[in-house]
Amino acid sequence: MALITLLSDFGSASGYPAAMKGVILSLCPTAQIVDISHDVERHHVRAGAFLLWMAVPYFPEKTVHCAVVDPGVGTARRALVIESGGQLLVGPDNGLLIPAAERLGRFTVFHIRNEQFFRAPVSRTFHGRDIFAPVAAHLANGLAPQELGPQITDYTKLSFGEGMRHGRVLEGEVIYIDPFGNLITNIAGELLQHVSPGDSVTIEVSRKAASARYARTYGEVEPHELIVTVGSHGQVEIAMNLGSAAQRLRAHTGEPVLIKL
Amino acid sequence: MALITLLSDFGSASGYPAAMKGVILSLCPTAQIVDISHDVERHHVRAGAFLLWMAVPYFPEKTVHCAVVDPGVGTARRALVIESGGQLLVGPDNGLLIPAAERLGRFTVFHIRNEQFFRAPVSRTFHGRDIFAPVAAHLANGLAPQELGPQITDYTKLSFGEGMRHGRVLEGEVIYIDPFGNLITNIAGELLQHVSPGDSVTIEVSRKAASARYARTYGEVEPHELIVTVGSHGQVEIAMNLGSAAQRLRAHTGEPVLIKL
Amino acid sequence: MALITLLSDFGSASGYPAAMKGVILSLCPTAQIVDISHDVERHHVRAGAFLLWMAVPYFPEKTVHCAVVDPGVGTARRALVIESGGQLLVGPDNGLLIPAAERLGRFTVFHIRNEQFFRAPVSRTFHGRDIFAPVAAHLANGLAPQELGPQITDYTKLSFGEGMRHGRVLEGEVIYIDPFGNLITNIAGELLQHVSPGDSVTIEVSRKAASARYARTYGEVEPHELIVTVGSHGQVEIAMNLGSAAQRLRAHTGEPVLIKL
Repeated sequence: MALITLLSDFGSASGYPAAMKGVILSLCPTAQIVDISHDVERHHVRAGAFLLWMAVPYFPEKTVHCAVVDPGVGTARRALVIESGGQLLVGPDNGLLIPAAERLGRFTVFHIRNEQFFRAPVSRTFHGRDIFAPVAAHLANGLAPQELGPQITDYTKLSFGEGMRHGRVLEGEVIYIDPFGNLITNIAGELLQHVSPGDSVTIEVSRKAASARYARTYGEVEPHELIVTVGSHGQVEIAMNLGSAAQRLRAHTGEPVLIKL
Repeated sequence: MALITLLSDFGSASGYPAAMKGVILSLCPTAQIVDISHDVERHHVRAGAFLLWMAVPYFPEKTVHCAVVDPGVGTARRALVIESGGQLLVGPDNGLLIPAAERLGRFTVFHIRNEQFFRAPVSRTFHGRDIFAPVAAHLANGLAPQELGPQITDYTKLSFGEGMRHGRVLEGEVIYIDPFGNLITNIAGELLQHVSPGDSVTIEVSRKAASARYARTYGEVEPHELIVTVGSHGQVEIAMNLGSAAQRLRAHTGEPVLIKL
Repeated sequence: MALITLLSDFGSASGYPAAMKGVILSLCPTAQIVDISHDVERHHVRAGAFLLWMAVPYFPEKTVHCAVVDPGVGTARRALVIESGGQLLVGPDNGLLIPAAERLGRFTVFHIRNEQFFRAPVSRTFHGRDIFAPVAAHLANGLAPQELGPQITDYTKLSFGEGMRHGRVLEGEVIYIDPFGNLITNIAGELLQHVSPGDSVTIEVSRKAASARYARTYGEVEPHELIVTVGSHGQVEIAMNLGSAAQRLRAHTGEPVLIKL
């Protein structure tokens, strides 16, 4: 059964995702469509890239992920399809697809050029509906990515960076703030060693310091206490039991993080 | 494969759309259900009518669209099914379905009266679940609209009006503001002629004037610059690159628009 | 066709529901998945329990409902599957599933312990993805609940209470406020007798009194008038025609309600 996911910054209430679904189901009537999110912060390519990176490992082989956070729509930026780990990613050449592609394995990038698989006419402002949705549907129907255009290697890169450990200090960056106000960092969970549940740690986000405790889950500490934990995505996360760490620390995506064990 | 879309002002988090889906899937277990939006501004029939109008052309023949923005629920207002262009529309007789029906072609309207296709008992306040959802499911299963009740011609009309061109002045109205703050007008894109990308234009929304440029897409101008463009729906649209035109112009649905080329 | 519903407080934009869907569709590719809501107020088990209670009667036999409002994730709280009225409920042992289970009939509760049906490794903070989603998928594939663990009777209870009638006074509690601002009470609709549409009543919410009228539906009274009605869920509801009763009365969930006929 064909499985297609959608991710965009169109707004789930906007009607635009529904137009994409109509196009997909016209071409591939049996497709299962799963929304990853349509409420990515508008034009925030890195936030979209993080959500896609987070979701893709849980989908089966042959899933086609169609992602559109695309401030450059209608300009010269290219459209891509990427094959990685048996899954396919479709979207604009602005870095959006790259962290997910890297997470799935070694990947191959194709430049979508074959207009016979587009809706006609192609609008200037809604390639989600006119290019990415029909291409995703054709791929779900079994089209080979090679049929869409040539392989390329000069695609736009995007990286969240990699947090580091220096002795008892972890250093990294906030890469995403989830709806609970948890700060997800680019520090791999494996770096959080030699601490035991309940240990005190000092955190600094954007140079504002605060006390926290290491915990394996939110409920291990008192309500409204800050914790450092390894989140479900495998990254080090700064969170608050029954509250919002982002609010308490007035933290934003992209800010530097220090954790002193 | 049966395809049913849903549109309402119930709120996607309210649980009411889920009750409708349970009713539909009890009657038509293989139905594909696509949400157009459940976050239409509450009781705003014109906003719902616009979203439905925008979405229907992208769906295949035999799609059943079930739309419920229904401030008159439980009063004497009638329930309708409309056949147009091979698709079916189900909802209240308050104009909600009419622009979409007109867009799909010549249409025929039936008054839903045959209670054998309703849930029993029918509540006074949730016809979405008790009348429209089961009727949509039966239609998706192949029921002929004629089986639901008599054809009528005195249904409630709803029109967005049609913007006009007088020489170098386009005149119309804001019919919808999308989640990006783009102002969608009732001026057909074909009226925006004899302008080239980059040309300066003057816009007036509710008599407040501002400068803008004609562009084919958002990224053609500087960040936060206002543009006039033809949107993906084919209508003239006032937008801002990487910003909200609605916020800048403090614009609202229904306000008059002038565009001086 | 396998039918699975999801309910959580993860946020529909968070990407976490999508991870659950990826896990489900990897195990049960043909599952129909319906979202009840992912925007339950964070950690608000009673609000989640109400939405689940409201939705379950409209789903067909064999539906598997997977509900996760779980402030105790990763602590010693147990995971449950409940069989009731031919449907199955999966979620944490914190009361979330109980009102829905009671509504569907006599029910049997099992403690989920058989780790062979979990994702490996199980994270500490996302049992929705690692335990509840795969268990729901296996149940949808036909797994018997008994295979998951032993039957128990000491599960955590949760009750909305039952409003009472004393002569011409109804007494109860606000159990849920819907997105329209309607106050849904724990007073059964059957208790609202001996009133006719248009009759004046006095309401008190948290000891603030107001006048209202009994109506069978919102449109029977003037705009912005308060009404007492029997909602689509069968409970007595305090609402406002074309407005928000919750805002007018500054009402909150859990507050006492008196209705004097």
